[in-house]
Amino acid sequence: MSNVGICGAGLIGASWAVGFASNSYNVFVYDSNHDILSNFFKTVDQLADDLKIFKNVDLNELKSNIKICDDLREICQDSLIIQESIVEDLEEKQKIFSELEKHSSIDTILASSSSYLLPSKISENLKNKQRCMVAHPALPPHVVPFVEICPSSETSFEVIEAAKKIYKNANYVPIVLKKEIEGFVLNRLQGALLNEAVRLHEEGYASIDDIDISLKHALGIRWAFLGPFEIMDLNAPGGIGDSFTRYRSGIKKLAQQQNSVPQYTDEYIKRLETEQRKRLKLTNREERTKKRNKLIALVRKLKLEQGE
Amino acid sequence: MSNVGICGAGLIGASWAVGFASNSYNVFVYDSNHDILSNFFKTVDQLADDLKIFKNVDLNELKSNIKICDDLREICQDSLIIQESIVEDLEEKQKIFSELEKHSSIDTILASSSSYLLPSKISENLKNKQRCMVAHPALPPHVVPFVEICPSSETSFEVIEAAKKIYKNANYVPIVLKKEIEGFVLNRLQGALLNEAVRLHEEGYASIDDIDISLKHALGIRWAFLGPFEIMDLNAPGGIGDSFTRYRSGIKKLAQQQNSVPQYTDEYIKRLETEQRKRLKLTNREERTKKRNKLIALVRKLKLEQGE
Repeated sequence: MSNVGICGAGLIGASWAVGFASNSYNVFVYDSNHDILSNFFKTVDQLADDLKIFKNVDLNELKSNIKICDDLREICQDSLIIQESIVEDLEEKQKIFSELEKHSSIDTILASSSSYLLPSKISENLKNKQRCMVAHPALPPHVVPFVEICPSSETSFEVIEAAKKIYKNANYVPIVLKKEIEGFVLNRLQGALLNEAVRLHEEGYASIDDIDISLKHALGIRWAFLGPFEIMDLNAPGGIGDSFTRYRSGIKKLAQQQNSVPQYTDEYIKRLETEQRKRLKLTNREERTKKRNKLIALVRKLKLEQGE
Repeated sequence: MSNVGICGAGLIGASWAVGFASNSYNVFVYDSNHDILSNFFKTVDQLADDLKIFKNVDLNELKSNIKICDDLREICQDSLIIQESIVEDLEEKQKIFSELEKHSSIDTILASSSSYLLPSKISENLKNKQRCMVAHPALPPHVVPFVEICPSSETSFEVIEAAKKIYKNANYVPIVLKKEIEGFVLNRLQGALLNEAVRLHEEGYASIDDIDISLKHALGIRWAFLGPFEIMDLNAPGGIGDSFTRYRSGIKKLAQQQNSVPQYTDEYIKRLETEQRKRLKLTNREERTKKRNKLIALVRKLKLEQGE
C-alpha cells in the first residue's frame, strides 16, 4: 500500500483524503487546527455518501485507510506525495512548503491544491524545486475526477510523470500544463465565462436567472461530455477546420467586444447578493450544495456507464 | 390544436418540428429544396430516437402532427408562430421575412433561429416589425430545452409574452434578452470560453485534449446543473457576495489578461484540424454526433428525474 500525506484538512483536504483512501491509498492527514481534525471523520461520512452513488464503497475500509496526525512530520514520512490544501495565501504556502521540504524525503512530491498561485512562487524558497508543483483539483474533488498539474520550469519530468501515475491510480484524470500561468486552465476558462456573464448582467442585457439558464439548460449539458474543440469538430459537416473557417469572423468579433474589465465594485456585488437571495435563501444554500454534489455524482455515474 | 410553421427544413428546422410535434402542436414544414423535404421523415425518425430517451413518444402520432408543404404560403396560414431556420445570411433572412410577412396574418409571430444576427437587421424591411424576433435554440433543439428570445426595440411586449407561452407549451425553457446584442447570451458565453481555450492552446500552455478534459471532466459536470451565478453562490460560506469579494481580484486580473483577439489564421485552423483528426477520424464524426445527442438526452432525463 502507498502513502499519501494530506496537509490542511478543510473541505478540499477531506475530499482529497476520501478520493485517495477510496482507492486503496494509505492517507495521513494533518491540520494545525485541532477542531478540524476532531470533526474530520464526520466530514468523511458526508463525502462518502456522494461517492457511493457511482462507486462501491466499504466505508469502514475507507476510514481504516485514513490516519489523523497531530504532527506535520507524521504526514511526511514515506509519503509518495503530500497534497497541500491550506489557505490560498502565498506566504502561508511558502512557509508550509519549507516545513514539508524539511521533514520529507527528497523523493516525496510536494503538490499544492492552489487554484491560482504559480508553482514557481510557491517553491521560491525551497532547496529542491524539482519535486514541487501545483495540482489543482475541481470542486468537490471526491466526485469530480479532474486534477490539473502545473509544473514550474524547475519541476522535473520524472516528478510530473510520477504524479500523473499517482493521480491516475486514484481514478483522477490528470492534465499537465506545458508552462505555468496564473489560474491554470480550469479557472482561466471559468473566469472568461464568468467575466462575460457579469458583463451581460451588469450592462443590462439579461438577468442572472436567464444567464444561469443559458448555461445549465444548454451549454452545460453538452460540456458535461464534450470540450470546446470536440464540440467545434461536430459543428460543421467538414469537422473542426470547416467549423472554425465558417465561424471565425463571428468568434473574432466577440473577442474584440469582450475585452472590458468588470470592476466588481462593492455596490455591484451587493446587487448580486440581493438578486441571488431572492432566488435562494441563505439558509437553503447548504441543502443546495448537497444536491449539487449528488447531481455531480449522478452525472459521473452516467459518464462511467456510457464509457465517457 | 395550434399551428406552427417551420421555414427551412434542415437539421435545425427538423429538430424544431420534432420538438413542437411531440408536444401536440400541428406543424407545417416548408423548404425551397425538395430533396430536403423528401428526406424529412427519415430525419424525424432519427431525431425521435433521442427524444424517446427522456419522453414517452408515439412516433405515429408525432409524425401525423407534421405536414410537408410545397408552398411557403401553406406554412403561413393560421400559424401562431413561424420558426425560420434557413441559412445564416442576413440578406437571405431579410428576403424570406418579407415573404413570410406578405403571406401571414399580422397576428403570426415571425421568429428567426439565427445564432448571431440582430433582430433589428432581420426585420429592417418589414412593415410590422413588432411581431419579429430572434428565437435562437441550442443544438440539437429536439433534446436541449433552451431557446433565447432576442427582441428588437420594435418587438412588442405582447408578442414576447405570446412567444414565451408557445415555447413553454412545447417544453422549452425560454429566456428573454432585455436588449439586442450580437451572439445573444449563449454564443457570447460560449465565445468567451472558446477564445480563451484557443489562447491557451495557441500560446502553448495546454493541448486540445487537456483543454477538452478541463471542460468535460470538471467545469461541464457542474454547469450541467448550475449557472455561473449559482455556482458562485455556493463557493464561499457567506454566499455570492462573499464569493465575489474573495475572488474579485483574481477574476479581474484574468479579465485584464484575456483581451487578446485570436486571429484564427488558415495556418492555425489547419493545425487544429491535424490535431483533432489524430483523436477522431473524419469517418467517425457521425457516430460521435449520435452519441452526443444520446448523452444529452440522458442528462436531460436525469435532470427531469431530479426535478432540475
